[in-house]
Amino acid sequence: MAPPPVVLTTDFGLSDPYAGVMKGVVLSINPAATLIDLTHDIQPQNIRQGSFVLAASHRFFPPNSIHVVVVDPGVGTDRMAVLLVTPNASFLAPDNGLLSGVLSDYLDTPPLNTERVSLPPNLTAYHLTNSEYWLHPVSNTFHGRDIFAPVAAHLSIGVTPDELGRPTQDLAWQPSPAPKQEANSLIGEVVYTDHYGNLVTNIPVRELGDGANITVGIKGRKIYGLSRTFQSTGNDNEDGLLALDGSLGYLEIAVRNGSAALLLHAEAGETVQVSQNSV
Amino acid sequence: MAPPPVVLTTDFGLSDPYAGVMKGVVLSINPAATLIDLTHDIQPQNIRQGSFVLAASHRFFPPNSIHVVVVDPGVGTDRMAVLLVTPNASFLAPDNGLLSGVLSDYLDTPPLNTERVSLPPNLTAYHLTNSEYWLHPVSNTFHGRDIFAPVAAHLSIGVTPDELGRPTQDLAWQPSPAPKQEANSLIGEVVYTDHYGNLVTNIPVRELGDGANITVGIKGRKIYGLSRTFQSTGNDNEDGLLALDGSLGYLEIAVRNGSAALLLHAEAGETVQVSQNSV
Amino acid sequence: MAPPPVVLTTDFGLSDPYAGVMKGVVLSINPAATLIDLTHDIQPQNIRQGSFVLAASHRFFPPNSIHVVVVDPGVGTDRMAVLLVTPNASFLAPDNGLLSGVLSDYLDTPPLNTERVSLPPNLTAYHLTNSEYWLHPVSNTFHGRDIFAPVAAHLSIGVTPDELGRPTQDLAWQPSPAPKQEANSLIGEVVYTDHYGNLVTNIPVRELGDGANITVGIKGRKIYGLSRTFQSTGNDNEDGLLALDGSLGYLEIAVRNGSAALLLHAEAGETVQVSQNSV
Repeated sequence: MAPPPVVLTTDFGLSDPYAGVMKGVVLSINPAATLIDLTHDIQPQNIRQGSFVLAASHRFFPPNSIHVVVVDPGVGTDRMAVLLVTPNASFLAPDNGLLSGVLSDYLDTPPLNTERVSLPPNLTAYHLTNSEYWLHPVSNTFHGRDIFAPVAAHLSIGVTPDELGRPTQDLAWQPSPAPKQEANSLIGEVVYTDHYGNLVTNIPVRELGDGANITVGIKGRKIYGLSRTFQSTGNDNEDGLLALDGSLGYLEIAVRNGSAALLLHAEAGETVQVSQNSV
Repeated sequence: MAPPPVVLTTDFGLSDPYAGVMKGVVLSINPAATLIDLTHDIQPQNIRQGSFVLAASHRFFPPNSIHVVVVDPGVGTDRMAVLLVTPNASFLAPDNGLLSGVLSDYLDTPPLNTERVSLPPNLTAYHLTNSEYWLHPVSNTFHGRDIFAPVAAHLSIGVTPDELGRPTQDLAWQPSPAPKQEANSLIGEVVYTDHYGNLVTNIPVRELGDGANITVGIKGRKIYGLSRTFQSTGNDNEDGLLALDGSLGYLEIAVRNGSAALLLHAEAGETVQVSQNSV
Repeated sequence: MAPPPVVLTTDFGLSDPYAGVMKGVVLSINPAATLIDLTHDIQPQNIRQGSFVLAASHRFFPPNSIHVVVVDPGVGTDRMAVLLVTPNASFLAPDNGLLSGVLSDYLDTPPLNTERVSLPPNLTAYHLTNSEYWLHPVSNTFHGRDIFAPVAAHLSIGVTPDELGRPTQDLAWQPSPAPKQEANSLIGEVVYTDHYGNLVTNIPVRELGDGANITVGIKGRKIYGLSRTFQSTGNDNEDGLLALDGSLGYLEIAVRNGSAALLLHAEAGETVQVSQNSV
């Protein structure tokens, strides 16, 4: 039986040897580890984007996967390194809000205006304080290599969380902005632009019913109703602009055979308004 | 004995979590799967390029490899998802022409002007219709995750093709353009530009004899004879322009220590003419 | 017990199928091979950069790792293909200087102004001359696929170095430039710019003592003392310019929450001067 994979999500890019070196460190401790890249192209130091991408993706990995998540502008400062254990997986990350998206899945009402959030009873977390499981000397600039990778490898060979550090009851909190209800509209925003130029919003499609009677507004444009596929021609927009149920579970703005990001000159942060038409 | 790898070729890029999520889905079903990326940088929605790259590469993978090939502008529409089984490998792809290059290897005379091609006797294909092997709910926007990855994983653990769907006798056909013979010239075109700026044509080098007596014309430039390496200096071109037998089996235009794409301002679609010199 | 990984470092990029095809060739010979990418984004044909990146990274991989290193402008010419065996790992590469950084670790005084370097007694090297272990036909344009990948795979299943070719006593030499001592200054240069815009120099931090009394000069700017982290605010530079002990063991110039490469318009080759302040 193969062990669960070690899944890497970072802002290291692939040009430099940083991601490869982390894998070398993992294999030096557990030569049988299975290493998978979720992505290394989180925008440099964009904690919110990292949190969003991880939250949208982690449930597609095997039970007990070990996620190593490093977007870490505060490396070497007094920010803690943490391990979060959920019923489904383990997450190693700097304690800077990067796990907010995963945490949201387990919170009844994600809090507003707070910098830390208390863990619900089915989650446990640990400050990584036991340097016995680290790579020495520990640099102040690359904890992915010196702390997170070796700790992940030790977890993968059976070291238990309580051997790695001390329990903590709360974690840093920096979630994606939540959409707001205003009169008969939901006001959200673009939180992610993908490789095709699709604009992923923070508006869960499950809140839009069947989508037949909605109007989506972005940058002065109106899109009527939800399309079923990227090829749909239900809207009367000559340039193929459409809105649909994206693969990550959120409303996406797309262009048939094109890029919505280019067509609309839109990027993360752009306001998106969804109105229920009166019937 | 390690099982054959699952080989991924897509236009997803590596910035987004899409390729990583496909791997998570495969490992959730077959934790022992070996996952290899051929490339995720097929130009978005460029079916012909995907077909060419796959055709040039698949024979370098182990027997019985399972190729997952996703360039899928019609995802969620009525285009079928298919499995093609050859004597050497299995290929999962949308039925949109993406497998034309592989099919060409098995056809005596690849047809012209047709949208579908009948399978020769040594190949079998299946429409993927058995949703029992898919990930649910199935989205209309990401069949790589919801259909192709889980079907590949099931194939890799021994599910047989006929359990996955119904046999089909033909597949969509969208091959690279074939070179044309005109008088004593072969008229082809650039079909691929690589990372170094080498211009890969659709002209098989085996059709050019030893290449000593040919003249290659592109964008008004003439190249005399085939060079043996990227460092060859046999031609009298001051800027190092040369033609050679490329690693994919086709005539390539290159520049010694430089980029032919930049020097010639050429890209896919550019005409290339090869003439046999009279001796 | 999992075997040591085959680690790939090339200038192939990830857009083309070249890196993927090399993996297919390795798995065709050793289906159980573990394949790791160090990076495929060495600048095209930049041998010095490849040498630097490999030297900074190889010690983080498991003992006996098999490194395949291909930055090979002379592919197909009379340059030899070599295997270098150190007490810690094996390295397959074209004999063009790409292994200079690794070799430096084993030389008491790396030589100046020479094109080849003799091996110290604890290293052995071989010219790869036994074509029995290659992929045929051997192209003149892609030895990564036709020579280096299959030889790596055969090494990984127990073929011994002396079966692969003939011993050689020296290797091509093309190291990074060494910093120079001038009066009370050390004159070095930027040798690598990473994804974040950090400027990695060739000045080993261990030569700078605790760094408290140094002044770093680059492009007319002065940086006083070494910072501990990327967030440090010890310097009085309003724009966050700082110098620190980088993760690769060399002095790095960085910008707090920014890119030093962009701020200074600096790249590889830029002079960096480190002076000891008089106390």
